[in-house]
Amino acid sequence: MHVVVLAGGIGGARFLQGVRELGVEVTAVVNTGDDVTMHGLRICPDLDSVMYTLGGGADAERGWGRTGESWVVKEELAAYGAEPTWFGLGDKDVATHLVRTRMLAAGNPLSTVTAALCDRWKPGVRLLPMSDDRVETHVVTGGQAIHFQEWWVRHRGQIPAERFVFTGAAEARPGAGVLDAIASADLILLAPSNPVVSIAPILAVPGIREAMVAASAPVVGVSPIIGGAPVRGMADKCLAAIDVEVSAGAVGAIYGSDLLDGWLVDETDADTTVEGVPVRSRPLWMSDTAATAAIVRDAVDLAGLS
Amino acid sequence: MHVVVLAGGIGGARFLQGVRELGVEVTAVVNTGDDVTMHGLRICPDLDSVMYTLGGGADAERGWGRTGESWVVKEELAAYGAEPTWFGLGDKDVATHLVRTRMLAAGNPLSTVTAALCDRWKPGVRLLPMSDDRVETHVVTGGQAIHFQEWWVRHRGQIPAERFVFTGAAEARPGAGVLDAIASADLILLAPSNPVVSIAPILAVPGIREAMVAASAPVVGVSPIIGGAPVRGMADKCLAAIDVEVSAGAVGAIYGSDLLDGWLVDETDADTTVEGVPVRSRPLWMSDTAATAAIVRDAVDLAGLS
Repeated sequence: MHVVVLAGGIGGARFLQGVRELGVEVTAVVNTGDDVTMHGLRICPDLDSVMYTLGGGADAERGWGRTGESWVVKEELAAYGAEPTWFGLGDKDVATHLVRTRMLAAGNPLSTVTAALCDRWKPGVRLLPMSDDRVETHVVTGGQAIHFQEWWVRHRGQIPAERFVFTGAAEARPGAGVLDAIASADLILLAPSNPVVSIAPILAVPGIREAMVAASAPVVGVSPIIGGAPVRGMADKCLAAIDVEVSAGAVGAIYGSDLLDGWLVDETDADTTVEGVPVRSRPLWMSDTAATAAIVRDAVDLAGLS
Repeated sequence: MHVVVLAGGIGGARFLQGVRELGVEVTAVVNTGDDVTMHGLRICPDLDSVMYTLGGGADAERGWGRTGESWVVKEELAAYGAEPTWFGLGDKDVATHLVRTRMLAAGNPLSTVTAALCDRWKPGVRLLPMSDDRVETHVVTGGQAIHFQEWWVRHRGQIPAERFVFTGAAEARPGAGVLDAIASADLILLAPSNPVVSIAPILAVPGIREAMVAASAPVVGVSPIIGGAPVRGMADKCLAAIDVEVSAGAVGAIYGSDLLDGWLVDETDADTTVEGVPVRSRPLWMSDTAATAAIVRDAVDLAGLS
């Protein structure tokens, strides 16, 4: 069995910990719309969150970055007056970014770089960037577009987003291996990641959504909304920006019945319906890996594959 | 009074601490032949040694890099298997290199970048790279040319050098401000830096030596050899490689009477003669800033300017 998972950052990473428990071949197609270049370093927050989490190196409490991190480089950059100073650039993280930046500068696609970094971390899951081309999520606010990281990290999502733009997505190609993985999958899962800024950028790369619709594998999504609030992060603010209700049903409807063959919601959202999509409810809190694995097994069951 | 000093790394930095005590305008023309790109970071060891030392941030005991340095990035790079692992890349240092690399990538010449870094360090001396063009000192050993840093740091100078090549020097232009500084100088000093790999690369940039010979200012050199041995570093190995005796007199003779108007040697080398060059002897150990300042005052005196 081959399971393909579309995933964002930390929520996707935790979900993948549960998927990995299936003990089958797993391919994660990871959002790269959050990627950003700072201080000349190419940073891939979602790929790194997944890689560090599955590789046992993530700081679970902080929710991003490495365990036992230090901040000497960041402090020194600030002492030089080098902007930006608001991005959390840990010393351990810097090494990851240095390796990535050098390999990209040498002409390697991000997929190759990601595989090389995973040689160290051995996440037990194949990580594929959604695209080897540059796609950047920008947030339109006050009539101006700012990088997603600036909105998310610098402003903590507290300035109103009018809409999200995936710059470069229209011209981007699916990353190396992505279409093959989707075509050969027995099951495709949508992690309970932010639908607006984690999953939507992946689906915005021409060819990926079409391949998922055309794939023989069923597509089952797991709701990132429980009882009208995001499991974590700022999905509520993101949904509000695109005038979508913060509910499990509304998110299921965004993905739509052409894509979804099943929609898993929390037990508190048991009355959820999505037109044309079978909905099942069960506890969706990913409190630990065992709980997450149980969620994943129910998603497999909902797909008719158990 | 305007004093121009040709200088290499730590020896040049300590000498400049003494020159700064004169309380006059000082311009240091610093060797960039040791510069190297590692892990995508542009590193200028001599400029940094001078900047950190004069700015109060150097680790005097280690002889290079920053005080209170940590090594997280270096250890993490090694964990990724990223080569080279033999270069001492401290976390604080990494920030300097990130700022420099980003500014260079944005199209700034090294002279501008150096001035920007010095905005933080305020060395009290104007630091000019010998050239804004790329010059790299290579060591020919066993018929192969390796970068100076590889010979110096990785092999600790312990594999025999056959000769030194300043790759790019023939096409390099003097750095921004260098020729103007030399032309407007009242005194030009050669720091007691390694004559073969610190001062020679500067003199190998077409136009610099010629400008010094043509300048109205006297040129006085301070011997880096005391009693037949280098004050510090590996000048003995470097001199042996180019078949020059390890003596104060032989080094003076390399610079030559067309360049030198005075040659200051240690009291143990009082019998030194250099054809056509006035030689004076006095204690040359730069044991502290006061001792170094006294050496500098004697150099000023030897130039007839006291």
